[in-house]
Amino acid sequence: MYKCENFQKIGAFKARGGMNAALRLSQTERQNGLCTHSSGNHAQAVAFAASVLGVAAHVVMPRTAPQVKKDAVLGYGATIIECEPTQEARETTLKQVIDQTGAAMIHPYDDYDVVAGQATAAMELIEDAGRDVAFDVLMAPVGGGGLLSGTALATHYFSPGSVVIAGEPAGAADAILSFKSGQIEKAPFINTIADGLLSSLGHKNLPIIRQHVQDIILVSDPEIIAAMRLIWERMKIIIEPSCAVPLAAVLKNKATFAGKKVGIILTGGNVDLGKLPW
Amino acid sequence: MYKCENFQKIGAFKARGGMNAALRLSQTERQNGLCTHSSGNHAQAVAFAASVLGVAAHVVMPRTAPQVKKDAVLGYGATIIECEPTQEARETTLKQVIDQTGAAMIHPYDDYDVVAGQATAAMELIEDAGRDVAFDVLMAPVGGGGLLSGTALATHYFSPGSVVIAGEPAGAADAILSFKSGQIEKAPFINTIADGLLSSLGHKNLPIIRQHVQDIILVSDPEIIAAMRLIWERMKIIIEPSCAVPLAAVLKNKATFAGKKVGIILTGGNVDLGKLPW
Repeated sequence: MYKCENFQKIGAFKARGGMNAALRLSQTERQNGLCTHSSGNHAQAVAFAASVLGVAAHVVMPRTAPQVKKDAVLGYGATIIECEPTQEARETTLKQVIDQTGAAMIHPYDDYDVVAGQATAAMELIEDAGRDVAFDVLMAPVGGGGLLSGTALATHYFSPGSVVIAGEPAGAADAILSFKSGQIEKAPFINTIADGLLSSLGHKNLPIIRQHVQDIILVSDPEIIAAMRLIWERMKIIIEPSCAVPLAAVLKNKATFAGKKVGIILTGGNVDLGKLPW
Repeated sequence: MYKCENFQKIGAFKARGGMNAALRLSQTERQNGLCTHSSGNHAQAVAFAASVLGVAAHVVMPRTAPQVKKDAVLGYGATIIECEPTQEARETTLKQVIDQTGAAMIHPYDDYDVVAGQATAAMELIEDAGRDVAFDVLMAPVGGGGLLSGTALATHYFSPGSVVIAGEPAGAADAILSFKSGQIEKAPFINTIADGLLSSLGHKNLPIIRQHVQDIILVSDPEIIAAMRLIWERMKIIIEPSCAVPLAAVLKNKATFAGKKVGIILTGGNVDLGKLPW
């Protein structure tokens, strides 16, 4: 059973965390607007939340970000501040934006209010399944860990008989290392089509994941692409590569999942249709 | 508001007509199986209906049909009989199949039971919308006219205050000519990406369409492709080119449809992901 967050506002689950974090700010805290740095769906989430709340949004994006992503952010009335495509330039530029505007920063994952927002996806999946389906396993991909830690908490509280298993790209394999060592580790290398899962785990996310997640399964890019194409062909819905990672993990480990009732968060559908991996 | 027949069994509305026609046969009539000739979704519909009813299916397909379509038919346990890719070869081969097997032929559109089956798509759309949404317009594409005549009848009986408007590819513009002349006309030329809409109108379909359809709007292939891509990008669902024709007609005539409540049958999502038109 799938939770189709590709049909969510902004086309991805990130709308949940961005909106919840924005709503948890007081009117005074958010009166100067919201800000963040992101090249992906979180940028749209913050822009969307600001537009709903009627405040400004300032989004720091690398100048190399695809125009389609910039257009989506601009479409919500946000201001884009371009920077060089490095982590340092992003953070420096964001600090300048905060100094100049007084906007409230919303982190994409290392924030308990964002985690609580992302948790509502699994909560709704569990509710939608009702008492008829008791999930054996709930699954999400892992990047920075906002969705995975939220999924783990929602499962712990609302479906305590289920285990949580994550999928991670082998080409951004930091979470599995951090999961084992208990410290924030870097990925040995970054090379994957799953461009939403490149971040290292957040400090607030790691302890939740270590406590409530059973396993993290690594999958290769060909496995991700095959799972993505399978969902496009059979379900007739559009998902982005990062979104296909949990299904790829299931297909790679059929014996483990055989006969199990599995719930998967399909995280998003924002894909450049002009650049498909087949 | 859309009726998403891309999520239907076999990935297209054709499952409705094929199944209804098969169910309307007596057990004696269908005991030797079902047959048809088709290179597209109707082939799968007949194979699907036969598999549900536990009888054989014999499908005549041009040898040039894409392997993915052949595989889908074989996947339902049907037998494929290949023929040369001409209308004459199809009909001759089908006649041989009927002589040899005694299977019952199910026509893709020129059959009242098929029309009644296709009509259930619009009926359900009207029901789903409920009393809250009174459609001004219901729309479907037109090829052989099975879906359009069914949509027209369902609208006439279940939403008599609505009008029905069809979309047709300019590169297979037979229906608009037949609609005006009252006789079955040939398309001036056949050249369109909407490969599900190449047939001429059926004799049983034309009178229903003339009586209950208000207009047929022609659209070009670039307009079809733009509408298809818009649905992929915004709705995150996969539709085939033929399916995008009504939305293309709306986008081409914005003033006509402005402020109107429009219901559109999205007919199917069977598209070769390796050969996209962008």
